[in-house]
Amino acid sequence: MTEPEQWRELGQQLRVDSIRCSAVPKSGHPTSSMSAADLMAVLISKYLRYDFGKPENPANDHLIFSKGHASPLLYSVYKACGAVTDEELLTFRKFGSRLEGHPTPVIPWVDVATGSLGQGLPIGVGVALAGKKLEQLPYRVWVLCGDSELAEGSMWEAVEHAAFYGLDNLIAILDINRLGQRGETMHGWDLAAYTRRFEANGWRTIEIDGHDVEAIDRAYEEATTAEGAPVAIVARTIKGKGVSFVENKPGQHGKALENAEEAIRELGGERNIVVDVEKPDAAEPRRFEGGPLELPTYPRGGDAVATRKAYGDALLALGRARGDVVAMDGEVSNSTYAEDFAEALPDRYFEMYIAEQQLIAAAVGMQVRGWKPFASTFAAFHTRAYDFVRMAAISQATMMLCGSHAGVSIGEDGPSQMALEDLAAFRAVHGSTVLYPSDANQTAKLVAAMADTEGISFMRTTRGNTPVIYDPDEDFPIGGAKVVRDGDEVTLVGAGITLHEALKAADTLASEGVETRVIDLYSVKPVDVRTLREAVDATQGRIVVVEDHWPEGGIGEAVLSALAGEQLQFVHLAVRDMPGSGTPAELLAAAGIDAEHIADAARQLVGAAVAS
Amino acid sequence: MTEPEQWRELGQQLRVDSIRCSAVPKSGHPTSSMSAADLMAVLISKYLRYDFGKPENPANDHLIFSKGHASPLLYSVYKACGAVTDEELLTFRKFGSRLEGHPTPVIPWVDVATGSLGQGLPIGVGVALAGKKLEQLPYRVWVLCGDSELAEGSMWEAVEHAAFYGLDNLIAILDINRLGQRGETMHGWDLAAYTRRFEANGWRTIEIDGHDVEAIDRAYEEATTAEGAPVAIVARTIKGKGVSFVENKPGQHGKALENAEEAIRELGGERNIVVDVEKPDAAEPRRFEGGPLELPTYPRGGDAVATRKAYGDALLALGRARGDVVAMDGEVSNSTYAEDFAEALPDRYFEMYIAEQQLIAAAVGMQVRGWKPFASTFAAFHTRAYDFVRMAAISQATMMLCGSHAGVSIGEDGPSQMALEDLAAFRAVHGSTVLYPSDANQTAKLVAAMADTEGISFMRTTRGNTPVIYDPDEDFPIGGAKVVRDGDEVTLVGAGITLHEALKAADTLASEGVETRVIDLYSVKPVDVRTLREAVDATQGRIVVVEDHWPEGGIGEAVLSALAGEQLQFVHLAVRDMPGSGTPAELLAAAGIDAEHIADAARQLVGAAVAS
Repeated sequence: MTEPEQWRELGQQLRVDSIRCSAVPKSGHPTSSMSAADLMAVLISKYLRYDFGKPENPANDHLIFSKGHASPLLYSVYKACGAVTDEELLTFRKFGSRLEGHPTPVIPWVDVATGSLGQGLPIGVGVALAGKKLEQLPYRVWVLCGDSELAEGSMWEAVEHAAFYGLDNLIAILDINRLGQRGETMHGWDLAAYTRRFEANGWRTIEIDGHDVEAIDRAYEEATTAEGAPVAIVARTIKGKGVSFVENKPGQHGKALENAEEAIRELGGERNIVVDVEKPDAAEPRRFEGGPLELPTYPRGGDAVATRKAYGDALLALGRARGDVVAMDGEVSNSTYAEDFAEALPDRYFEMYIAEQQLIAAAVGMQVRGWKPFASTFAAFHTRAYDFVRMAAISQATMMLCGSHAGVSIGEDGPSQMALEDLAAFRAVHGSTVLYPSDANQTAKLVAAMADTEGISFMRTTRGNTPVIYDPDEDFPIGGAKVVRDGDEVTLVGAGITLHEALKAADTLASEGVETRVIDLYSVKPVDVRTLREAVDATQGRIVVVEDHWPEGGIGEAVLSALAGEQLQFVHLAVRDMPGSGTPAELLAAAGIDAEHIADAARQLVGAAVAS
Repeated sequence: MTEPEQWRELGQQLRVDSIRCSAVPKSGHPTSSMSAADLMAVLISKYLRYDFGKPENPANDHLIFSKGHASPLLYSVYKACGAVTDEELLTFRKFGSRLEGHPTPVIPWVDVATGSLGQGLPIGVGVALAGKKLEQLPYRVWVLCGDSELAEGSMWEAVEHAAFYGLDNLIAILDINRLGQRGETMHGWDLAAYTRRFEANGWRTIEIDGHDVEAIDRAYEEATTAEGAPVAIVARTIKGKGVSFVENKPGQHGKALENAEEAIRELGGERNIVVDVEKPDAAEPRRFEGGPLELPTYPRGGDAVATRKAYGDALLALGRARGDVVAMDGEVSNSTYAEDFAEALPDRYFEMYIAEQQLIAAAVGMQVRGWKPFASTFAAFHTRAYDFVRMAAISQATMMLCGSHAGVSIGEDGPSQMALEDLAAFRAVHGSTVLYPSDANQTAKLVAAMADTEGISFMRTTRGNTPVIYDPDEDFPIGGAKVVRDGDEVTLVGAGITLHEALKAADTLASEGVETRVIDLYSVKPVDVRTLREAVDATQGRIVVVEDHWPEGGIGEAVLSALAGEQLQFVHLAVRDMPGSGTPAELLAAAGIDAEHIADAARQLVGAAVAS
């Protein structure tokens, strides 16, 4: 057989296997797989460099299915590469099988979970950035994209960033099969619509018939020799290609074929071609030197320091100590203080501009390559990338996020800039760690701890300067809390800015003879259940929680969850009305979360107890 | 004075006033205002049609500052239009002033809050869609965009949708002042970079010097006569224009000018020009006929029906009854069942393709015009637009969101498609309503109630069919809960899919002689505190909450918040490990939220009580 004949045969096999594996659970996306089968057949036969026996080989190419619903095709590719047996292939979508409905890194050759459209390409940009700018390795990043997902703005963030950074190691394969889930896409088979947009952004483009294996071969050849810009292969394909009763028909999305046997017959029956995918040449990534960790320290009781500034200081120290730490920011690095890292360690810093989805996707992509990414922007603007964070948890990603300018305490800028839902959002991310330091020394210690924390960790920082209340040598384990004041009449629980208001309230209360316990709940998740329970016992269940956040899902509910079953007299001070502009003090007071309101709440709890 | 001379004078006034108002709070963005001053001067002098005395006039143009941080310019424009006094202008950013740091609809001429970049243009698309497709009015939508925000993918969703829908009533004014917050933008003054991208998407473009008032005049003239496509005016401008010591200088973003008096002198001093903005011709919007509301009904105990299907049925019924209801979907309308509305009422349905940010932005834009938008996609994919929802709350928007395919109970598709954080996310939206029906009749009633609910309401629907347990004539007020089973030993609280598991558990427990109360907490926010408290009293504080959601921020914590201070024996069943694929039953069991686990938890509570 000639090469093209072999490729065509392999394409048919990938289609047949996509149909077969979807037939078992009677679900999945065989038609969306069939359109891209020839594109994958040529890729694995001739262009992909991958050592399936050694997925950790740093020289391996990356193959990301941004259209994750084409998982039957991906798994059929794994079978064709000899990585998955036919028996395993037929466990598709079964409980306990690693061949899930959409790909996840439960499979060793899958870098990241996809299935929420529009994420694979931006993450591919992160992987390609690591290869090009950090590791200086020749691996390529191949991303199979659907046409429906090109409506996602995140794809265009990726397209723009890829060109801006000259990522000629990134090849997007656009499977333009015309049909979305419920009908035609915006542009149908108007390949030029896509080509124009990619070219306007500075990409090279190659338009082909995605079922002409020789054209595919030429396109890959050209793509792998092009330099200076990423390449998009704009392939006209047919959804359900090769099976007359589903081919190019609407209403066939996301369904197993009704007559699988007939379809397989039409495709020429089962095959068992195994491709010996070429392994990459051995290569070692560039690594960066580290050194001893010298975290910044701040004299206790000295000048007040914003925790966002301490974040910047600590990030720089961590970057100097650890060569695997990288940083990126959404064009606000002079507010988050990531700029100190950017200036001192420019080789490991990436400006992601005002594109928060790409910011997080870049972090996810870099951690695929083993880097420890710290991504920062205003905490309010991390919400822009919430779906990326959700998916990153499925991707088993370890990344460190910092959100600055939390809460009403930012002052004059007004509510659009105030994160008031970030704790709720990040607590509800699987396996996440949520930190909210109150003091510069604590911030520094926690920044260092984040780099050693698995999963997604999020640190909330404060805009304004706050007193330094801890000694530099104090420890702040993740999952801990600090009893900052001891007392046996009432407990005040705060974190970040509200801890300082709670301390002021405790001073007032002390002057009135009320013995007040104050807890710094810097670790919002995991939360220190023992310290909270001790406080319940010590202060007769009287607890005031105060937070610069909406009442839902934040510190108050974290405390209630930790103390479920305890007998409490519980007061929850949180932001309940929409704030406007004003000074931080005015806004804390208006929200009822300043020292005065805290003291009032404590008095009422204590007084109520006295009266009863 | 000639017209151009007047425009130039007005431009200087807008600059002076931007500097003056920022000087009082010593914060704000005068330099970002100064770059666009001439663009606004010509606009309000000759092209804007707006009745400032009657902001509710349906024929008014819309002026949206997508670059919301240029609020000093916007407020200076209001002064120049005679809408705001000089005295009020100088209250900028003061506590209690409606002239907040970023614009919000506290001001009657502001349609929506901006300040999270990249949102004004997508919302403008919604406003323009309403004018063009629904109301058939000649108003124009003018959107002032910054260059930094053109890095946001959401802008490109807007650009693509505007062209796709032929919105020639939309004019984007791009203020290309080269400098972002911390340095140069990706493209600096490369106007062609922007022009190429807009043209590739099908827009008309006009490149000008944004300080040449005659060129601006010609551009607006051309833009207002063009037909068939939206227009982008790509204006090269200078940040801080007109003041030598800040003009085109980095490090001048987001700061009041240090020497305001000198700057004002250089700009020729204060002026008090008042522009008589031309009022629009009177015009009445097209409205759609309604009729009696005939909600779908489902026989109790009859065929099981998915709540997502009931949503679709009810939405259609509501659309037939109310001419102000419109619907839109993120290209999954055959899954969410918005397709029934789409087919029957195509004039009021908008396909937003796989672009969730634009989906929500379109809803926000349409409610600006008084429509009642219902926007649907998978609940998991609403997270893509979380920042838009957050901002919509600041915009005082009333919109109805439906998220289908919630939780592990979707089955084989796997975690990327399972919303497990949506309740936490939507509860933490200011003023939101969060609904999670368990039955088709309940769903229908709640869909109708949503249209009369102020603020952002979110309904979570279930993929699989569930039993019809309520009579069609039963009422389900928002903020209520149903006691579905009475009992005095233990309370089970569920909603949606888990209510049915709780009912099965109650059957088992009943057969064992355990008197079990079951509460359907269909209104997750606001929550029915009274019904929950009654259950505590009735069942000795024994509560099992079961939810198809992560443990954080969902139903469990909503219940704990409602019952803070009560003595509880509380068990919280929620999804704690990352799910994979499997059948719904397998996944509910694996997550420990099926009937068997619920019954076990109840037995332990009851048994524990017996033993103690």
